[in-house]
Amino acid sequence: MITLASDFGTPYPAAMKGVILRQCDARLVDVAHDFPRQDVRAAAFWLREVLPEFPPATHLVVVDPGVGTDRAAIVVEAGGHRIVAPDNGVALPAARRLAARAEGDDRIRVYEIAYDDGSTASNTFHGRDVFAPAAARVHEADAVGDADRVTPTEEWVDLAFPDPEIGDDGATGEVLVVDDFGNAIINVPGSVLDGLASVTVNGESAPVRDAYAEMNPGERLVTVGSHGNVEFAVNRGRGDDAFGLGVGDDVSLSW
Amino acid sequence: MITLASDFGTPYPAAMKGVILRQCDARLVDVAHDFPRQDVRAAAFWLREVLPEFPPATHLVVVDPGVGTDRAAIVVEAGGHRIVAPDNGVALPAARRLAARAEGDDRIRVYEIAYDDGSTASNTFHGRDVFAPAAARVHEADAVGDADRVTPTEEWVDLAFPDPEIGDDGATGEVLVVDDFGNAIINVPGSVLDGLASVTVNGESAPVRDAYAEMNPGERLVTVGSHGNVEFAVNRGRGDDAFGLGVGDDVSLSW
Amino acid sequence: MITLASDFGTPYPAAMKGVILRQCDARLVDVAHDFPRQDVRAAAFWLREVLPEFPPATHLVVVDPGVGTDRAAIVVEAGGHRIVAPDNGVALPAARRLAARAEGDDRIRVYEIAYDDGSTASNTFHGRDVFAPAAARVHEADAVGDADRVTPTEEWVDLAFPDPEIGDDGATGEVLVVDDFGNAIINVPGSVLDGLASVTVNGESAPVRDAYAEMNPGERLVTVGSHGNVEFAVNRGRGDDAFGLGVGDDVSLSW
Repeated sequence: MITLASDFGTPYPAAMKGVILRQCDARLVDVAHDFPRQDVRAAAFWLREVLPEFPPATHLVVVDPGVGTDRAAIVVEAGGHRIVAPDNGVALPAARRLAARAEGDDRIRVYEIAYDDGSTASNTFHGRDVFAPAAARVHEADAVGDADRVTPTEEWVDLAFPDPEIGDDGATGEVLVVDDFGNAIINVPGSVLDGLASVTVNGESAPVRDAYAEMNPGERLVTVGSHGNVEFAVNRGRGDDAFGLGVGDDVSLSW
Repeated sequence: MITLASDFGTPYPAAMKGVILRQCDARLVDVAHDFPRQDVRAAAFWLREVLPEFPPATHLVVVDPGVGTDRAAIVVEAGGHRIVAPDNGVALPAARRLAARAEGDDRIRVYEIAYDDGSTASNTFHGRDVFAPAAARVHEADAVGDADRVTPTEEWVDLAFPDPEIGDDGATGEVLVVDDFGNAIINVPGSVLDGLASVTVNGESAPVRDAYAEMNPGERLVTVGSHGNVEFAVNRGRGDDAFGLGVGDDVSLSW
Repeated sequence: MITLASDFGTPYPAAMKGVILRQCDARLVDVAHDFPRQDVRAAAFWLREVLPEFPPATHLVVVDPGVGTDRAAIVVEAGGHRIVAPDNGVALPAARRLAARAEGDDRIRVYEIAYDDGSTASNTFHGRDVFAPAAARVHEADAVGDADRVTPTEEWVDLAFPDPEIGDDGATGEVLVVDDFGNAIINVPGSVLDGLASVTVNGESAPVRDAYAEMNPGERLVTVGSHGNVEFAVNRGRGDDAFGLGVGDDVSLSW
């Protein structure tokens, strides 16, 4: 199985699928192709949430603002999964979660993918010319290191989400992503809301609830999202608008 | 085969696919993941139109404004198809059509899916935690009732589209959905247009045509859509804008 | 394998998939279903770029502003691929490229698909009622001409992209498409940029670069896209906005 994730929209992902299917017969599953454009951190967040739901697979990830520069192409291996991606950190949060959940070997291994920069590959579409062929090779290899032009490396770009500050009577964090429902998700663990009926968000009180439908339509709430983080929502509406929050915004909680 | 339909956008449907593929090896086919948010009636309309095109399959449907409340999770069985969905009526119009087209057994059977409310399941993403695992179990079961934690029930929430009023010289109906082309589709059967060259729509005359391209680009028409209902359209344009119609609006036709 | 491409959005493509899967067991791969509405030329451009990436397959293409009129339904065969489409030229640029890349037989053959106009088929959704069943038949046939209701024809509608004018000190072309990143792509081959550090675009100078990331975020550039054509872009932004270019606009380059 090969999953595919990118910020490509359409029809570029289909070109990657064609390239893969010329090389191998893997089942293909789309994760998303509408990640926020060139937002490596948002993609890293969603991959961390979604990839561990899959059985061991090869994951092709192309959110790649550095395409055509000298950034490396890598494979990150963890918990039996193999993530083929540009070396910009996008795969690392998912890899850490996969490693943490692994039964047995919980190491993360990284490999560099050699490619002919500027010769056979275009400078604008490495998804098609570099990453898709590499994903097919990695998918077909018994061990990642057996794949052609894939060699272990000890150096790679990491990416970590910012740490929240959590105190006795409050916490401060940052909006990591806004999902398609308009829920604004921050880097504060949902456990801070345990036992609270309400919380103050950037100076205004808001109710804490277990489910969206515990509020009337159009009313806002603070809840714990499916990812386990604090999330700002509106029942049948958009939390980002109601709370005035966008990606990167600071959020101050007090209770 | 398991089809998937939701109002989730991305990447949440991929989490459901991962969960399913950890449990079974079904072919997965997306129906749509951009149904109007939490609009149970619109989803019910599209499912009624699309699901009967498929061979017998398990259909995973999650348009679920009541997630995290005490609404039940159900399986609706009709015409050899199995629809796994929240108990909010979303599956019933499709089930009635599947039953009506069935050769042989035309009964509708409903089963309740037991789940551990609030313990292992999140309160915000039953698609991943309740419905996807249930769809995999139902897919793998020889009979629906053989699936683990699935038991017959005699009570469920129904959903019916409003009945139009049809007279000798006119009809009144309601816009059920607007499709991606901007065609506004009402609950009046297309047969009322038989033999008409034009019809009065909320007081203004509009031509009746068999095909969009019988009008010039930008011109409006009334036609019978692929679903068999009366539809308000513009050749190469949007009928909802041209006729000033949105979901839920009343429409008065006279001829 | 059957690929699917249309301007349908959702959920109409799922109806086509259901119809196909009632007839055969092909692997289904989406190319795109959000081609610009009824823009035959844009679809033809993307199909030319994407279909040759696939191994030999049947491609179902429905961008069909003439649905319900007397336009024919055809199969275009080239380089081992079979494209099922309305007879409006949408398949021809892809077929020419497939033929040019073919090893061995480089001919293009066209077949007409007979269908019962106005009787069993709806007038508004030939994708479901005509093209999807035909794609399944063509997929299953050893030779295209063996498929039921498919006969060779010598007449069809062609479509060619406009030719650019290329001189010693400049070129004039036309925007063919704008991709999802906002890159405006014209009909001038990228080779005209060889060795240039900048170029004048409709009177204003712009840098020529090999990769988006060679400019700072927000800065514009002229580059060679993955399709080999000249493209107007902004690093991490939209080239169409920055250059003031939309589909069909003329572009004058001088150097």
